[in-house]
Amino acid sequence: MKRTTYCGLVDESYIGQEVTLKGWVQKRRSLGNLIFVDLRDIDGIVQLVFSQEFGPDALAVAEKLRSEYVIEAHGRVVARAEGAINPDMKTGKVEVEVTAVTVLNEAKVTPFNIQDDIDASDDLRLKYRYLDLRRPEMQKGLLIRNRITQAVHSYLDENHFIDIETPNLTRSTPEGARDYLVPSRVYPGTFYALPQSPQLFKQLLMGAGFDRYYQIARCFRDEDLRGDRQPEFTQIDMETSFMDQDEIMEMTEGLLKRVMKEAVNYDLADPIPRITWDEAMDRFGSDKPDIRFGMELKDVAAAVQGAGFRVFDATLDNGGQVKAIAVPGGADHYSRKKIEEKQEYIKRFGAKGLAWMKVTADGFSGPIAKFFADDRVAAIKEATGAQVGDLLLFVADSRKVVADALGYLRTSIAKELGMIDESKFAFVWVVDWPLFEYSEDFQRYIAAHHPFTMPNEEDIPLLATDPHKCHAQSYDIVLNGYELGGGSIRIHKREIQEAMFKALGFTKEKAADRFGWFMDALDYGFPPHGGLAIGLDRFAMLLSHKENIREVIAFPKNSKATEPLTHAPSEVDPKQLDELHIATVEQD
Amino acid sequence: MKRTTYCGLVDESYIGQEVTLKGWVQKRRSLGNLIFVDLRDIDGIVQLVFSQEFGPDALAVAEKLRSEYVIEAHGRVVARAEGAINPDMKTGKVEVEVTAVTVLNEAKVTPFNIQDDIDASDDLRLKYRYLDLRRPEMQKGLLIRNRITQAVHSYLDENHFIDIETPNLTRSTPEGARDYLVPSRVYPGTFYALPQSPQLFKQLLMGAGFDRYYQIARCFRDEDLRGDRQPEFTQIDMETSFMDQDEIMEMTEGLLKRVMKEAVNYDLADPIPRITWDEAMDRFGSDKPDIRFGMELKDVAAAVQGAGFRVFDATLDNGGQVKAIAVPGGADHYSRKKIEEKQEYIKRFGAKGLAWMKVTADGFSGPIAKFFADDRVAAIKEATGAQVGDLLLFVADSRKVVADALGYLRTSIAKELGMIDESKFAFVWVVDWPLFEYSEDFQRYIAAHHPFTMPNEEDIPLLATDPHKCHAQSYDIVLNGYELGGGSIRIHKREIQEAMFKALGFTKEKAADRFGWFMDALDYGFPPHGGLAIGLDRFAMLLSHKENIREVIAFPKNSKATEPLTHAPSEVDPKQLDELHIATVEQD
Repeated sequence: MKRTTYCGLVDESYIGQEVTLKGWVQKRRSLGNLIFVDLRDIDGIVQLVFSQEFGPDALAVAEKLRSEYVIEAHGRVVARAEGAINPDMKTGKVEVEVTAVTVLNEAKVTPFNIQDDIDASDDLRLKYRYLDLRRPEMQKGLLIRNRITQAVHSYLDENHFIDIETPNLTRSTPEGARDYLVPSRVYPGTFYALPQSPQLFKQLLMGAGFDRYYQIARCFRDEDLRGDRQPEFTQIDMETSFMDQDEIMEMTEGLLKRVMKEAVNYDLADPIPRITWDEAMDRFGSDKPDIRFGMELKDVAAAVQGAGFRVFDATLDNGGQVKAIAVPGGADHYSRKKIEEKQEYIKRFGAKGLAWMKVTADGFSGPIAKFFADDRVAAIKEATGAQVGDLLLFVADSRKVVADALGYLRTSIAKELGMIDESKFAFVWVVDWPLFEYSEDFQRYIAAHHPFTMPNEEDIPLLATDPHKCHAQSYDIVLNGYELGGGSIRIHKREIQEAMFKALGFTKEKAADRFGWFMDALDYGFPPHGGLAIGLDRFAMLLSHKENIREVIAFPKNSKATEPLTHAPSEVDPKQLDELHIATVEQD
Repeated sequence: MKRTTYCGLVDESYIGQEVTLKGWVQKRRSLGNLIFVDLRDIDGIVQLVFSQEFGPDALAVAEKLRSEYVIEAHGRVVARAEGAINPDMKTGKVEVEVTAVTVLNEAKVTPFNIQDDIDASDDLRLKYRYLDLRRPEMQKGLLIRNRITQAVHSYLDENHFIDIETPNLTRSTPEGARDYLVPSRVYPGTFYALPQSPQLFKQLLMGAGFDRYYQIARCFRDEDLRGDRQPEFTQIDMETSFMDQDEIMEMTEGLLKRVMKEAVNYDLADPIPRITWDEAMDRFGSDKPDIRFGMELKDVAAAVQGAGFRVFDATLDNGGQVKAIAVPGGADHYSRKKIEEKQEYIKRFGAKGLAWMKVTADGFSGPIAKFFADDRVAAIKEATGAQVGDLLLFVADSRKVVADALGYLRTSIAKELGMIDESKFAFVWVVDWPLFEYSEDFQRYIAAHHPFTMPNEEDIPLLATDPHKCHAQSYDIVLNGYELGGGSIRIHKREIQEAMFKALGFTKEKAADRFGWFMDALDYGFPPHGGLAIGLDRFAMLLSHKENIREVIAFPKNSKATEPLTHAPSEVDPKQLDELHIATVEQD
């Protein structure tokens, strides 16, 4: 029989109707001569009732039903008795008196229950992913993800963007992250690479005159995994010609508004606030500030200088910063021991110490309070906004260390103290980024975004003289302290692209070898262009209030980049390697 | 300045308005004191006019413009003089009197002209793909492709399908085509495979309760390339639970109607005709029949048997077939020499010969006409529908050879004689396929579709006894003689899946090793399910009347699976191979 409706939709409006439902047995219980079965499908759960009275054959079948059996049930929707109503369920006022039932498939006992709160290990959940995904909270994550992509398609289509696919078998360009390689069978000794992003292809599409491109693009990076990293991930990838930074940001805000409304029914106010990279670092100690709460970093140099506390004075004399955050009500919450744990933690950012004082009715308490009496109390309270009962945390160091250490303390303490309104979605643009950043790994300046980012017009001459002073026409969109996406205006002229590679320390030969084909393309009339990419996995994770992108990917890899369900990666037939002209190399 | 509209949209409704346009110089010509520039963007071309009178500075710039320069032009839209109107262009009644112009980028002379008919080699076009894609006919192909995908998203979303991404780094299952492999860095000696299709993952999603899934999915096959094959291709991939074959076909027809309307404004009549695989082979000699024309295969056994033509009689005595097609007006068109060329060609299908007769006012002419006189003339004309002036082509052989040879002749001759209405889109369902087909390569029966296809209910017992007699719950959708897509109801019970693998000659161990994880999944309550996949590249190719899917892929590979623009595949840094624990193997 054809299904007439979905389990989760059967509400009072169906009373008196015959329905045919198909789904999974959530649970079965007997009550006197009756059997009750909760039947589950993608839309929810409805209660079936079996009895001798209206379905003797069905009752006989019902006795054999077990959890996760797949059944087809036909019956009449009736109102539940007064005392049996479940006001928390959409279908809680009705039940279905089953007249006929068919078992479509049986099921073994599942290794964990199909319900929201389970206590199974990550690897067990991944091994039985098809069962894990039956759980409503998992389905919700993928449904939100689907609503995001549907909103993206409709909004961008309305705005004349063209969905164009770019290759997944492409050329290795060993900049940035590590490539996944694919051996070629046709040309021994050569390899394709899986794309880390469609960056150059989308720029070529602008050169080809497509004007507005988008793609929900799979990207690949062979990096060690963290909670929000996977070997393959997906980005909402956009590029436009002839639009400047403001126009692209406005277009993106329209997109974000649409997505927030359609995916989670959230009214996003516009415009989204914009702050410069400098301001983000100064106020929040982060280039991806979480602006759902205050506790901003405050410069206390003027208030502390010359007070005789050697660490502060020496730092300021050497051109460093002394900054503080005032933790509201933190005086009681943070013991000396807890503060020392924080101090230990921030050593990873290069911080040599963490000074602190508690604000009392009389002034400050704590080991360094003696340096800051009288006028200094008022000045520090003025600079930090601290109130009685607050804890003041100070870091004195270089700008970067101060930002990293206090930025970390700000967010970790806000979480510990419950200062964050988790129902809020706080977007912010971070603009006017440095074009380069110094890499300790490479011992040289590298591109802060990527080497195709356009410097600010007035900084172009600096590319040849003082490249690290250049700022970029780039913009990141940040949501709740996560980098949701980023973009830039791109270089569309060969001479600027050449200067950029030179500033990055490429020889002419290296630039030609790796990107000669692209610079040649720039000779043929590329339009001014720019774009943006949004991390879809992270977006779906944040909108479904999950902690890990694995929760919004149907078949993710685990933290070892393996897939416990199908057992990928796996050994392969030696014949396959022969055909690809490669051999595996024994480990030492 | 901000663009106010697109070049191709500037028609009479703009007369009197100021516009700002951005685009590429298509061509420039001087006429007296005036300079005319055709400016091109994604929407088309508009004529700019420069003169001393309304823009002396602009005129000075215009003198330096060359083809493919990128410019921004501001001016007033005016009506063209009577004699200057171009009725073939949407913008042909107007021109823009330019008051200000800026060169945004210059361009070298392009290796071929940016126009529809060019005479460049395929590899030159691929090397300069960004220029090739500027040509309107190339843009049209990708725009149609975009309209197809937009229609797919909106139709399937309306019908409660959920867009879910499946992994691209997965496990190698060396059935069917050759896998692309990706070495794992984390586990030496192991490999991911790029998916040939999301088949098992979409079935797992049904097991996970997602009810209706779709994805526009990238697939990968490392096979030797032909015109309609690429190393990576894209399919519109769908799967549903609890729907039977008819319901899935109806749903697909709704999708196809929507796509045809939105992509090429074509009203597709429904229902789409359905024929069985047997009928397709019998009538058209093909499992993907082109039904835009007749010239069907006709069985002439009764009319020719016993006439004394040894080849026919022997074939029939041995249980073979004698069939013919009647080529309308073919008697004059096909000389003996041309027919012999055809005879030579069909040897590749195993045909030992091609018999023929021409229909004259008096009967038949040709070498074998003497066998078929009197009553036989009428019987053969009756069986084939042949008229005076037609050419009759006969093949006598096994059913398969007859079908292959006459099926080929039918379509190749229809093309040669212009019998095909190229404006028509003729869809047809081919249903009731054999479950298995004999593979000469493997010397055994293989799955006609894939090993997860459900036999017809009544054939399930045959799986154990006479598997090659099984028919499948499968259906292909055919468009204009191309297999556009195919699908089936899938096996959802472990015991049937096991019987299927056994029928395919898998040992228990081999089945467990390769697909044990999947059969284990079937233990946990999989719903009845089935689906369909449509080849997006081929669909876009057919709707844009192209001959090769390369024309509707932005950055395709050439016939050697290389990409002449970026030079992929390429050699890589030895360090990359070391990290992946592989080495390249020298060729003998």
